[in-house]
Amino acid sequence: MGYTTSNGRYRDGLSGKVKVIQCIQAKGPINRSAIAAAVQLSIPAVMNITDELLRRGVIIAVGKHGSGVGKHPEMYAMCGDHFRCIGVDIGRTMERIVITGLDGSVLIQDEFPTEFVTQPRRFVDRLCEIICHTVESAAVDPSTIVGVCVAMPGLIEVDTGRVVFSPNFGWKDIPMQQWLEETLPYQVIVENANRAQAFWEIRPGRGNDQLTVFCAGLGFGIGAALIRQGVVYYGASGTSGEFGHVTVCPGEGERQCTCGNTGCLEAVASGAALAAQGRELAESGHAAMLYKLCNGKIDQIDARLVFDAAKRGDADCALLVENAAKYIGIALASAINMLDPDEIYLCGGLMKNGDEFFERIKYHTRKRQMQFAGRHVVICASIQDDWHVAKGATLMILDKGYKFQALSFLY
Amino acid sequence: MGYTTSNGRYRDGLSGKVKVIQCIQAKGPINRSAIAAAVQLSIPAVMNITDELLRRGVIIAVGKHGSGVGKHPEMYAMCGDHFRCIGVDIGRTMERIVITGLDGSVLIQDEFPTEFVTQPRRFVDRLCEIICHTVESAAVDPSTIVGVCVAMPGLIEVDTGRVVFSPNFGWKDIPMQQWLEETLPYQVIVENANRAQAFWEIRPGRGNDQLTVFCAGLGFGIGAALIRQGVVYYGASGTSGEFGHVTVCPGEGERQCTCGNTGCLEAVASGAALAAQGRELAESGHAAMLYKLCNGKIDQIDARLVFDAAKRGDADCALLVENAAKYIGIALASAINMLDPDEIYLCGGLMKNGDEFFERIKYHTRKRQMQFAGRHVVICASIQDDWHVAKGATLMILDKGYKFQALSFLY
Repeated sequence: MGYTTSNGRYRDGLSGKVKVIQCIQAKGPINRSAIAAAVQLSIPAVMNITDELLRRGVIIAVGKHGSGVGKHPEMYAMCGDHFRCIGVDIGRTMERIVITGLDGSVLIQDEFPTEFVTQPRRFVDRLCEIICHTVESAAVDPSTIVGVCVAMPGLIEVDTGRVVFSPNFGWKDIPMQQWLEETLPYQVIVENANRAQAFWEIRPGRGNDQLTVFCAGLGFGIGAALIRQGVVYYGASGTSGEFGHVTVCPGEGERQCTCGNTGCLEAVASGAALAAQGRELAESGHAAMLYKLCNGKIDQIDARLVFDAAKRGDADCALLVENAAKYIGIALASAINMLDPDEIYLCGGLMKNGDEFFERIKYHTRKRQMQFAGRHVVICASIQDDWHVAKGATLMILDKGYKFQALSFLY
Repeated sequence: MGYTTSNGRYRDGLSGKVKVIQCIQAKGPINRSAIAAAVQLSIPAVMNITDELLRRGVIIAVGKHGSGVGKHPEMYAMCGDHFRCIGVDIGRTMERIVITGLDGSVLIQDEFPTEFVTQPRRFVDRLCEIICHTVESAAVDPSTIVGVCVAMPGLIEVDTGRVVFSPNFGWKDIPMQQWLEETLPYQVIVENANRAQAFWEIRPGRGNDQLTVFCAGLGFGIGAALIRQGVVYYGASGTSGEFGHVTVCPGEGERQCTCGNTGCLEAVASGAALAAQGRELAESGHAAMLYKLCNGKIDQIDARLVFDAAKRGDADCALLVENAAKYIGIALASAINMLDPDEIYLCGGLMKNGDEFFERIKYHTRKRQMQFAGRHVVICASIQDDWHVAKGATLMILDKGYKFQALSFLY
């Protein structure tokens, strides 16, 4: 944890300005003496910082507050007008984009079907059009835009924004950030979608930014992110969190995973895996209810239809769903035994299929979790909202402010 | 990462004094301007600190060094005489104790067979006798002893030094630290043995203290520790690193683990598991070479004998060993996919059984590891030395110096 100052010196911890911003984000409106107490800086130091942040348009004064006699202090909150962040969530079926202010206000959100996955260059060109179109639609002054954070599944080299390997997209070594910056007039960072989702789970005001939070994305693919005291765990080369590629079925002859391996959690419990297994059942004359629900169009079977058939009593589909919950539980129990988080959030499309699935995951997790390990871990289903990843991506822009010219004065 | 100062204020990062000590540990003999450059403090600030550390007996001046004309600067190194640390490694078969100086010099090391495991109170009484006896044998002035770090397998509540659960010892909720401090005239901390081993792997001078290091102990039981940039990953309740209780055999009817679960890595690949499986083979008339090697005394079969029989061509034992390597590889690959470390160290008794076993573990790890994940991870066999855990425990005393009265002046 640390940053490089504008004169190139590496410093431990957060800069005073960033600490003050984080405090105002989490607790604002708040006065200066309360900020000083929270961030452990002197009141004059905080006054210097708040004066600069006011002048720069990062925060605003929202009036005086208090009761009784005596001087009432000025209260500060984040400013939504001056700096805007663009967050993009590239999902396997939909691309979502939001533009927010630093106060978390949403200026616009829009979604588009994902296209041209097999042509990465064309995919990126279209993404640039979407971003420019959205900025225009929102009538946002481009000079207020700090930058863009693109969140997508797969292994990302975060320093360069290269997509090293995305099994779900079939991409290897795509210079995503470079291509985007060649076309767009904005600075771009590329991040893993599970990390953006995890940032959303510890968003300002939530009160869990000092905890160890494990966030698992259970969708078309499966991945995870670990955040400790507000700091993302990246690992040595930025490829940590490949929860979907934890081995849960070590036997021979297991189903092949998109990563090339066998026995991965993603190969048996992801949305893609449930759909594939459902199609195989229907093709081989099993899962009669599923066959009925898809009107005989087997190639249109997706995970949601497998869940629907299971709920309507299709025993074959019910077994698929139960198996998915079992293997997710096994992998989560291993994650608890290894990582001992305070909170686990389960997110992603699979979690839209009702409480029963969540309960079965928790059952299998608790069954496999070691006695006394992760004693107080809380397992939560994330609130269902398709916009979390894109919104989390906008939060990552401020978190990685040292990468953006517009925020360099903070360091 | 942070500490509480002597006036009760919480501070981020390391204190200047601790930074200077770490620098001298890693790079000494070293002069003050080189220290200042390394720890990013001003030279006058470093002079104040080195003056105090000299006066307190933490460091010593070892003469002037340089070539050519001009003033040659004084060089500093850690002092071995003034502060001594006691490290204890409680293993399932042996207890090992070392007393070291802050310069890493070993004053004495001694070992004793582990006894009274089923009577924890008696176990602790005997441990106190061993510690006092060792201090006397070494003719160490007790006033120079900073404290004791006891390292053992299992879940430890590090704030209180309680053993919450140690499957290998069959212990639950043993107030180890309290019992030891009631009898001994020293302050005591209790730690997990894998964390002590990991501290040894990043010992001063090694040059890997800024990396992400995953250290797996493969012995009677199996555990692990993760250290990032010199800081132990504890998790929310201190129970992280239960690598032996990652599920690798999720099938029904699997072998029961000492933790009460089934399908754990420890239940199929630990020393205890290999011994148990070897005994079962011998009892059922298989593994003829193993039966011969134990002279028909099946209850004396241990993991080493299983390895010996495998090396002499016993196919049943060879399969046991290969299976252990396979499951360890599967669990390591999952750890790489999730945690993306720079370095993995494999330690513990199983690693004493030759290069072939290590090669098989690496083969299975690489086979299961996700493409491009943990791209640069180096998998190493730890140097074979029975004293690493005890020596690592002494290093943890300085790392947790804020817990010891004798070192409170550092904070």
